[in-house]
Amino acid sequence: MKVTVSRKAHFNAAHRLYRKDWSDSQNNAVFGKCNNPNYHGHNYEIIASVTGEIDKETGYVIDIKILKDIIKTEVEEAFDHKNLNLDVEEFKTLNPTAENIVVVIYNKIKAKLKSNLALEVTLYETPRNFVTYSGK
Amino acid sequence: MKVTVSRKAHFNAAHRLYRKDWSDSQNNAVFGKCNNPNYHGHNYEIIASVTGEIDKETGYVIDIKILKDIIKTEVEEAFDHKNLNLDVEEFKTLNPTAENIVVVIYNKIKAKLKSNLALEVTLYETPRNFVTYSGK
Amino acid sequence: MKVTVSRKAHFNAAHRLYRKDWSDSQNNAVFGKCNNPNYHGHNYEIIASVTGEIDKETGYVIDIKILKDIIKTEVEEAFDHKNLNLDVEEFKTLNPTAENIVVVIYNKIKAKLKSNLALEVTLYETPRNFVTYSGK
Amino acid sequence: MKVTVSRKAHFNAAHRLYRKDWSDSQNNAVFGKCNNPNYHGHNYEIIASVTGEIDKETGYVIDIKILKDIIKTEVEEAFDHKNLNLDVEEFKTLNPTAENIVVVIYNKIKAKLKSNLALEVTLYETPRNFVTYSGK
Amino acid sequence: MKVTVSRKAHFNAAHRLYRKDWSDSQNNAVFGKCNNPNYHGHNYEIIASVTGEIDKETGYVIDIKILKDIIKTEVEEAFDHKNLNLDVEEFKTLNPTAENIVVVIYNKIKAKLKSNLALEVTLYETPRNFVTYSGK
Amino acid sequence: MKVTVSRKAHFNAAHRLYRKDWSDSQNNAVFGKCNNPNYHGHNYEIIASVTGEIDKETGYVIDIKILKDIIKTEVEEAFDHKNLNLDVEEFKTLNPTAENIVVVIYNKIKAKLKSNLALEVTLYETPRNFVTYSGK
Repeated sequence: MKVTVSRKAHFNAAHRLYRKDWSDSQNNAVFGKCNNPNYHGHNYEIIASVTGEIDKETGYVIDIKILKDIIKTEVEEAFDHKNLNLDVEEFKTLNPTAENIVVVIYNKIKAKLKSNLALEVTLYETPRNFVTYSGK
Repeated sequence: MKVTVSRKAHFNAAHRLYRKDWSDSQNNAVFGKCNNPNYHGHNYEIIASVTGEIDKETGYVIDIKILKDIIKTEVEEAFDHKNLNLDVEEFKTLNPTAENIVVVIYNKIKAKLKSNLALEVTLYETPRNFVTYSGK
Repeated sequence: MKVTVSRKAHFNAAHRLYRKDWSDSQNNAVFGKCNNPNYHGHNYEIIASVTGEIDKETGYVIDIKILKDIIKTEVEEAFDHKNLNLDVEEFKTLNPTAENIVVVIYNKIKAKLKSNLALEVTLYETPRNFVTYSGK
Repeated sequence: MKVTVSRKAHFNAAHRLYRKDWSDSQNNAVFGKCNNPNYHGHNYEIIASVTGEIDKETGYVIDIKILKDIIKTEVEEAFDHKNLNLDVEEFKTLNPTAENIVVVIYNKIKAKLKSNLALEVTLYETPRNFVTYSGK
Repeated sequence: MKVTVSRKAHFNAAHRLYRKDWSDSQNNAVFGKCNNPNYHGHNYEIIASVTGEIDKETGYVIDIKILKDIIKTEVEEAFDHKNLNLDVEEFKTLNPTAENIVVVIYNKIKAKLKSNLALEVTLYETPRNFVTYSGK
Repeated sequence: MKVTVSRKAHFNAAHRLYRKDWSDSQNNAVFGKCNNPNYHGHNYEIIASVTGEIDKETGYVIDIKILKDIIKTEVEEAFDHKNLNLDVEEFKTLNPTAENIVVVIYNKIKAKLKSNLALEVTLYETPRNFVTYSGK
């Protein structure tokens, strides 16, 4: 019996969408107001969903405290109250679109999970815009 | 790497559930108070979820402004502040159940997307009742 | 010690904003798309907030089941799945703006409460538009 | 055309995570504060999602009133305002983790659905912790 | 310039509504299913709202970290994952209705605030039932 | 009959809490991680609540489209996708704490309202931290 266990968390960060190798006008044409050189920001919400067999003994797929701690270390401490472009290693060379952020978060959490557990991550940039990645 | 990009939107509309070819008592038996001949209404919320490869250059699966504009033209301008039964072509001959509405919305948005993008649409009739269709 | 006890409920209804004694163009100028002659609709949410002394014996200001039942009889059964303009007595001669609806709801609930209890009603027409009335 | 119809409901219950055949210290090590012998509790929210073909005649996959009534009988009347460990038969010998509860709910609802309908159940223990089961 | 600063927090607890000095039938008549002798439970949400002058130097009415820490010590650590009737001193002799709980929480937080700050506390027992107290 | 009409809106912005005339260590001591020199950000939500008499003719206290447009011009266009410290005139010399931001927003909206209308503004910095100002 495979069950999915989900945990919601959040972090607040500044970011700017642009490519260093593009001209200003090209960045503005593609990224519009998200390309403000002084940055803007979001309250990002994430849902990390872990799928696996229920352990007969404990009744857990994964102790949600373990999942909570992985999210805390890998996501909250790494991204919260940060400027994604300037303060976070992964985005110094990678445009921090919601799509790229969710893949980075997926990879960071997946590396800390037992290999028999599947993962899906949803990242809300705003309550109306969100992205999902499951490693496929 | 396939990521799903979701956009939430909404429209307010009146509707009535019934079949013109059924008797009143048959409509009442099946559709109950949703068959009020004077109509009732909802704040419909929709989530359109588009799945595809991340574009290496932009970091986007789809520019969410494009998705927002498709929803605006195909759904909001077509359905908002309308009577679905009387004002919307598709429902003049199709009972506007949540199931039928979500299929109509899916088809309208899908026709505007590049063919390599998959789509799923969720339609909330109320915060407690909602339906999902992904073209299968 | 005065405590406020609040109960949330909801009803779905169709309505149209207009005055019978105005011309079409005047109604359109003031009420815009809310003046669709075929109606549109909403999932209305209401919060009824009752303020009074805590009863020393029970620890209640009002048994919330009583408040729930008053809302059910006075609001839900009267307005749910109705066309406010056509099916609800109060709005046959009163334009069903959110402001007018919240006053009508306040008066209906207040009449059923003990006179030493104060009332405030909030009515959400959409999650972004809402009104509040407390009898002042 | 397969559409998924979802209905949200809720129940309030007390529970305690522990195994009778484990020592106190073992239960504390694994279940921490969830092992409080005096119980704690939650407002559980459930979403039952039923997938099937749209009925051409009615435009329904399932009349949501039928789904609502199944949830009422099988879940709300069985679990609401109960102590899961003491008052609910299924958990007298099964640790009421979110994972185990969602499987029990799935099985109870599935038994009442026509066999051509697929089911998925999501159970929120808190707004931040939730689990999903679809019989796989 | 007086501004109100609000902080939302939550705790999960079991409780039972009854008076030890009443008969079973009297408790059942007044408290119904909330009188289950085996307890039931809730995810309580609280909003603590502090009103005062903006400090010209810092731009704060109160550092929200201070408010967060007061709530953590006075409410979360005292009530979370507890049985209110059995584990919390204040409710050993006081019926833990939402009204009585919000007054207890108000008094605990108020005692930790500077005397020039006003306080209002809202306690959600469920998303549909909540109470508010401001010391009046 | 005085009714309050509320409209919810939002903007996304970067900011940093600090005083130019303070040392780094003083800023860190008071503003902690909110003092990140590279900025962080939020999805700010605002609720503007306008109180006045219901106009007998229209049934409106204020046409909510007018309120929506004032918020759009005064708040969204001024603050959305901006760095509050660098891009917004008011915060070049004023620390953009939630308290200071809500007062600035209040003053901007109030100046556009008829003088017989009262105003209250609530600003959510996160879903858990928010502030309210009503000009008192």
